[in-house]
Amino acid sequence: MPDPNQMILATFIHNSGAHPGGWRWPGAPAVDQHDFAHFAHLAQTAERGKMHCYFSGDSQGFPSISGKDAFAATDYAGKLEPTTLLAALAVVTKHIGLIATASTTYNEPYAIARRFASLDHISKGRAGWNVVTSASDGEARNFGRDLNMDHDARYARAEEFVDVAKNLWDSWEDGAILRDRDAARYFDPAKVHELGHKGEHFSVAGPLNVARPPQGHPIIVQAGGSGPGRALAARTADMIFTAASSVEVAKEFRDDMRARAAAFGRNPDHVKIIPSVQLMVRASEAEARRADEELLDLVPEALALRTLSLQLGVDLSHLSVNDRLPDLPETNGGKWVQQSIIRMAREEDLPIGLLARRVVVSRASFSYTGTPEQVADLCENWFRAGAADGFSLSPNYQPGVLEDFVDQVIPILQKRGLFRAEYEGDTLRENLGLPRPENAFVANPALGCEPRMWA
Amino acid sequence: MPDPNQMILATFIHNSGAHPGGWRWPGAPAVDQHDFAHFAHLAQTAERGKMHCYFSGDSQGFPSISGKDAFAATDYAGKLEPTTLLAALAVVTKHIGLIATASTTYNEPYAIARRFASLDHISKGRAGWNVVTSASDGEARNFGRDLNMDHDARYARAEEFVDVAKNLWDSWEDGAILRDRDAARYFDPAKVHELGHKGEHFSVAGPLNVARPPQGHPIIVQAGGSGPGRALAARTADMIFTAASSVEVAKEFRDDMRARAAAFGRNPDHVKIIPSVQLMVRASEAEARRADEELLDLVPEALALRTLSLQLGVDLSHLSVNDRLPDLPETNGGKWVQQSIIRMAREEDLPIGLLARRVVVSRASFSYTGTPEQVADLCENWFRAGAADGFSLSPNYQPGVLEDFVDQVIPILQKRGLFRAEYEGDTLRENLGLPRPENAFVANPALGCEPRMWA
Ligand SMILES: Cc1cc2nc3c(=O)[nH]c(=O)nc-3n(C[C@H](O)[C@H](O)[C@H](O)COP(=O)(O)O)c2cc1C
Ligand SMILES: Cc1cc2nc3c(=O)[nH]c(=O)nc-3n(C[C@H](O)[C@H](O)[C@H](O)COP(=O)(O)O)c2cc1C
Repeated sequence: MPDPNQMILATFIHNSGAHPGGWRWPGAPAVDQHDFAHFAHLAQTAERGKMHCYFSGDSQGFPSISGKDAFAATDYAGKLEPTTLLAALAVVTKHIGLIATASTTYNEPYAIARRFASLDHISKGRAGWNVVTSASDGEARNFGRDLNMDHDARYARAEEFVDVAKNLWDSWEDGAILRDRDAARYFDPAKVHELGHKGEHFSVAGPLNVARPPQGHPIIVQAGGSGPGRALAARTADMIFTAASSVEVAKEFRDDMRARAAAFGRNPDHVKIIPSVQLMVRASEAEARRADEELLDLVPEALALRTLSLQLGVDLSHLSVNDRLPDLPETNGGKWVQQSIIRMAREEDLPIGLLARRVVVSRASFSYTGTPEQVADLCENWFRAGAADGFSLSPNYQPGVLEDFVDQVIPILQKRGLFRAEYEGDTLRENLGLPRPENAFVANPALGCEPRMWA
Repeated sequence: MPDPNQMILATFIHNSGAHPGGWRWPGAPAVDQHDFAHFAHLAQTAERGKMHCYFSGDSQGFPSISGKDAFAATDYAGKLEPTTLLAALAVVTKHIGLIATASTTYNEPYAIARRFASLDHISKGRAGWNVVTSASDGEARNFGRDLNMDHDARYARAEEFVDVAKNLWDSWEDGAILRDRDAARYFDPAKVHELGHKGEHFSVAGPLNVARPPQGHPIIVQAGGSGPGRALAARTADMIFTAASSVEVAKEFRDDMRARAAAFGRNPDHVKIIPSVQLMVRASEAEARRADEELLDLVPEALALRTLSLQLGVDLSHLSVNDRLPDLPETNGGKWVQQSIIRMAREEDLPIGLLARRVVVSRASFSYTGTPEQVADLCENWFRAGAADGFSLSPNYQPGVLEDFVDQVIPILQKRGLFRAEYEGDTLRENLGLPRPENAFVANPALGCEPRMWA
């Protein structure tokens, strides 16, 4: 069992890096983001550091108010699809969790449940699914729509989607496969269940055509910040990603999420809240400041302004860099990042140019460069303040930032007793200290329907 | 360049084996079909034999007129999802092609194009996509429908689906990614294209968010046997799988497909036709006959009858094993297998029990057990008769049947100059002797639409 006084550490997969100037960083190798070897090295580095999981974000298109020319200055130019990438990474790693984003808005539950079940089998119990609802019209347009589904409708669909996926994972009970050669019984039909699900958004007969995943259910991750997003996370998620610009914002968010989970009858300790952070280390404070500036200087102003527009979901190209942010119309995109940015702009009365430079670095996440001791202090402070169960590192450039974190920060956290020296269990769930879910069909024999398909 | 006088050899991935008695074969290890190591060994064995490709079939559900109890006697009980499995296999192999089935009926082109592009990048140009239209109502019921889409409608959708996928693969030109740090240009926007596709079945803006695959397009495979199925294959496929019960049926099929490809203005040599075959080797003819019988004796009669019903798409459970096959209503399922079975029943005037025993072994494919020389002769005869460009081995049980083929049959074919001693190229396309497709947006600058999404 993991020690509850120790933190969770994850890392995000980026092409060249989380910082938009990262790919131009002279000290980093030029990364081919379609080359599997790059990601294999990163996952193995994170595993060398005993980190809990490696996470690949995703979207199924391009954001709609980007600007082709401005965006040509970023490495935002295609990437490997997460479930295939993580399946391949499962083969070159042994312990680290493998989490992929998949959208409930432009997918079907049977197909998603299957791919994550398969990933969980291939990795022997290390899969996780970051449930997102897709915030951009650019994705909608690749799936037969002109505009994205409404925010609330997306979350209503997501709620049903996750429930169906969980029941599909349970449709084969543990131990349903017998392989009894003498009796000519490969499986036990009594342990295979049909859902006969007919809901508002989906009708799905089942059973799944993959056996129950080793973890029972792959880990469910969620990162919604709005009311409906938080409700979905509190009811269904094992782990919650968030962007928090300060320890106070993070604490407020974690307190709220734990209370919401408890209100759903859940043990709040079974919901792990992990803010994403852009941390870098340097030998001195002076070098840290210089690194921040040099990285930011690699980002063209046009790109910074476009990124601000994109994050706000509103085109700002008619404004000048010295203007203040106007009042903004409500959008149909993600709410949390937009609200965090507006709060930052108002509290510090930032002109758009400066705000754009701030936002382009880390969107609404926390970004900090310091000495290894300072970075370890920061992690310790947030953790002890109850602002986080751990962190998801977003490396500004790669592989250097992750390597530095593993080689210079993790040993300090280990020495302080704040991070483990070895993986405790075999599966991601075990390494997170989360219970294996009971099978819904075992818990509730009335679930499902009379066999029809098999009749 | 591959020698055109040499044959193509592929192998199918099965859980325990293609033969429904295979999982009970005492000489084979008990296979856990969710254990990646099993498939890794098979793919590496096929690669040791310099075989062209390793193929995973797929369906997104269970057939609708199966019988839960009868089917408990088969290993048809869940499997790893093909694109995740093949991505993982890409890491433990270097040369062999990796082909996965994906349905155009219960998927969206953007999602499929992405996954296969990703698999092509991860495998450095070894991906193939077997385009199927999904023949069973059991799949439909997992995707919100009670019955499958009509046969013709499925193929109409498939035609548009494949065209959109190909254009998505072309939406990033070769060389679009620059990584020019000094000029702050990660990619060249002029080489990234929107499709703005608005068709009868799909509207897809594009571009894809994966760079052009190493092969340009992953290999397209098709296995339709009906008129619309053959038309789709002849127009779009690089490779065609088929089930042929005799050399005459195979020759007739290949002649027809080559003529159809030529009628579409294609070079028929760029369409490789590969019947699937269940071949086993034994030291003598007597041992071969005994092996066939022993395997068949491992299949319960109820399973054989259920399998016959399933393959015909018609419930036969009210008939006795001594009855002859009645006239059958036309179904909405696959046509080719049904017609081949009916032909077999009528030509040999087989009672249902015997027909079921025949069909359960190999459906409509060719099945033969002989000495290594006899099996090599058979391959040579079909190949020289113009009945096949090569074969896809369906091993009756695993890993033994594949190992025997690699160790005992392939060396004979190599000695006869009918099979290569080494992989000729780096990509699957090169190893098949197929040209890399031209980019549609380069060939036709009027294709696509004015940038909108990026505006
Ligand atoms: C750390 C973090 C990671 C995220 N990863 C993804 C992702 O991979 N794909 C995606 O579409 N959205 C991602 N999101 C966006 C959220 O899913 C969500 O849309 C956003 O936080 C807005 O919340 P709301 O939809 O509840 O308003 C991420 C958000 C955060 C904070
Ligand atoms: C060798 C071979 C492999 C096939 N593999 C698959 C498969 O993996 N998934 C699937 O749904 N259908 C598969 N099929 C079925 C075909 O896609 C097709 O539905 C069938 O041949 C009937 O043809 P028709 O649809 O043109 O009538 C396969 C057929 C053959 C001959």
